[in-house]
Amino acid sequence: MIGVDWGTTSFRAFRVGRDGDIRDRRAGPKGILNVPDGRFGDTLREEIGPWLAAGEDRVLLSGMIGSRQGWKEAPYLPCPAGPAELAGALVDIGFDWARVKIVPGLSGTDESGVAEVMRGEETQVLGVPPLLREGGIACLPGTHSKWVQVERGRITGFTTHMTGEAFGALRGYTILGRMMRDGPSGGAPFDAGVARSADPGGLLHHLFGVRAQALAGRLMESDAPAYLSGILIGHEVRAALAPAASAIVQVIGAPELTALYAKAITACGGYAERHDGEAAARGLALIAEHAQWN
Amino acid sequence: MIGVDWGTTSFRAFRVGRDGDIRDRRAGPKGILNVPDGRFGDTLREEIGPWLAAGEDRVLLSGMIGSRQGWKEAPYLPCPAGPAELAGALVDIGFDWARVKIVPGLSGTDESGVAEVMRGEETQVLGVPPLLREGGIACLPGTHSKWVQVERGRITGFTTHMTGEAFGALRGYTILGRMMRDGPSGGAPFDAGVARSADPGGLLHHLFGVRAQALAGRLMESDAPAYLSGILIGHEVRAALAPAASAIVQVIGAPELTALYAKAITACGGYAERHDGEAAARGLALIAEHAQWN
Repeated sequence: MIGVDWGTTSFRAFRVGRDGDIRDRRAGPKGILNVPDGRFGDTLREEIGPWLAAGEDRVLLSGMIGSRQGWKEAPYLPCPAGPAELAGALVDIGFDWARVKIVPGLSGTDESGVAEVMRGEETQVLGVPPLLREGGIACLPGTHSKWVQVERGRITGFTTHMTGEAFGALRGYTILGRMMRDGPSGGAPFDAGVARSADPGGLLHHLFGVRAQALAGRLMESDAPAYLSGILIGHEVRAALAPAASAIVQVIGAPELTALYAKAITACGGYAERHDGEAAARGLALIAEHAQWN
Repeated sequence: MIGVDWGTTSFRAFRVGRDGDIRDRRAGPKGILNVPDGRFGDTLREEIGPWLAAGEDRVLLSGMIGSRQGWKEAPYLPCPAGPAELAGALVDIGFDWARVKIVPGLSGTDESGVAEVMRGEETQVLGVPPLLREGGIACLPGTHSKWVQVERGRITGFTTHMTGEAFGALRGYTILGRMMRDGPSGGAPFDAGVARSADPGGLLHHLFGVRAQALAGRLMESDAPAYLSGILIGHEVRAALAPAASAIVQVIGAPELTALYAKAITACGGYAERHDGEAAARGLALIAEHAQWN
């Protein structure tokens, strides 16, 4: 089968064999925002044409391609949901050159009843075997980080944290940015920021401390971005792990980012296992197995 | 005497009688950033000339006028410090038309050893009689809110929270702003935000929830700014009150802002008393009493 993780800014396609192995892959910047005039069909065919010619004709798409801004809206499916429930709610796109379907996103509420939605992350989570086998917690870091609970092979709930976007706004549009220069993203300043997130006073106080430490000559301009990043990720991880601080967390995403989160999770008392974005390919293949293709 | 609370963007002068009463006041936008070519002397004389002509010649200035960007730098005095210590560290500005002195700011560290500084707030705090008499906690809300501890007539420590500036950056430069319209700053949405700050998940999760609630049709665009403000102020107040949740807090500042903070402090289990910015006049008069004028 052919699986495509089709997001707002990125397009990643996988050709997956019957044994679940990834036989081929393509990636590029053809996210839904970069496809002109809604020409999603043409774009898809251009990208995966050679695989179609080689005999594949089952194509499963996940991510923002199923949003209102995407190709065709695939309504959110409420939690709990696993591969079978997602496969039962696929949205069909008719084509003479392939059978194309879209995986719906999931909806839920946090424990206080506030609404939550996701698109694409559900498929990545289902592509991490230990989560399906034993259940547990997944973390998908990013602009809007997701923390996902899995029980008995189904996603039972999740929460979103605005960490990446808050970092950008604070760095770009407050006094903190004025005393920062680009520097390495990990290292000792990041660790110091994570440690700082355990201090009394709360996040809004710790943010001001970035400036105070720089003014006092205790933080170099080029170390300040990593320190700020450590404070924010540390606060996210501590809050998300609060119900079970010693949990094993499956961290899924780009290697640079999962490395930072793994450090923070370890520093906060948890244990992290890292997975890259190819988890999406396994998740798509698994959902495809459960789907009706005729 | 004449007291001036001279900040970055505002200038507020008071003529104070021997009995401590404010006999006259002037205010305007002549903050230090708005005084061209460092002409602080001319600006001061223009503003308070009539009072000088009436016989006053002791002039005490507090606030950013004593910073490196101001008239003359008044080095930070370390905590603990009260009226006598501040009066002993005034910085003189020689003039033939008046005796002008600047109150230094204060420096300290939070309980984790991170540096803290303030300029101007120390004078306002000393102008609130119950704090001097009985000690306690002051809160000065704003772009960078200050929480100040007073014991036996001296300021013993303080912390800063980047609440106001974080609100501006989040509203102006994240997805949250895109779903907001101007609306009233208090009311039920503010209270809901303060209540939300007590939920599990942490600030970065609660921020994302602003969007989630709006998408779910549970929050009107014009209510969203007050809800966001309540979340941020709620987090600040909860963290600052954590050591003593049922504390009495003296809230000092502009009436609209102290009203919001008083609501949040009450919702978090504390008790708030409100004071306006004229506390600066009483603080300046008190420091002037302790000072050597010859």
